[in-house]
Amino acid sequence: MCESNAYLTKDGKQELVMESVGFVRAENDGVFLKSIFGETVKVNARILELDLTGHKILLEPEQMK
Amino acid sequence: MCESNAYLTKDGKQELVMESVGFVRAENDGVFLKSIFGETVKVNARILELDLTGHKILLEPEQMK
Repeated sequence: MCESNAYLTKDGKQELVMESVGFVRAENDGVFLKSIFGETVKVNARILELDLTGHKILLEPEQMK
Repeated sequence: MCESNAYLTKDGKQELVMESVGFVRAENDGVFLKSIFGETVKVNARILELDLTGHKILLEPEQMK
């Protein structure tokens, strides 16, 4: 399986947002994540980095506009 | 293996940018992609969607600022 864990970078730390993420979409108001179990979450962030071999997705908080 | 193919969406079509992508990073001036074979490419785009079960990364052209 190729699902990854998604983390939000905050103050130099990585906070787990969701495990076993299967789908990610950048939307106007944040990032939509869906796990392989069907759970969904919306995070006020943007996609920063994907390490597909390390099974890791990094998000960073959306900057104020 | 969990590498994915990366596509750039353009005029409703999907144009293959790189196969067997293992790493992706959003940078200030575009998206950096690295394949599992060590090839790298920089695309003037942003990360739109990741389908980890479908092994597909979608990028969209960076909007003019």
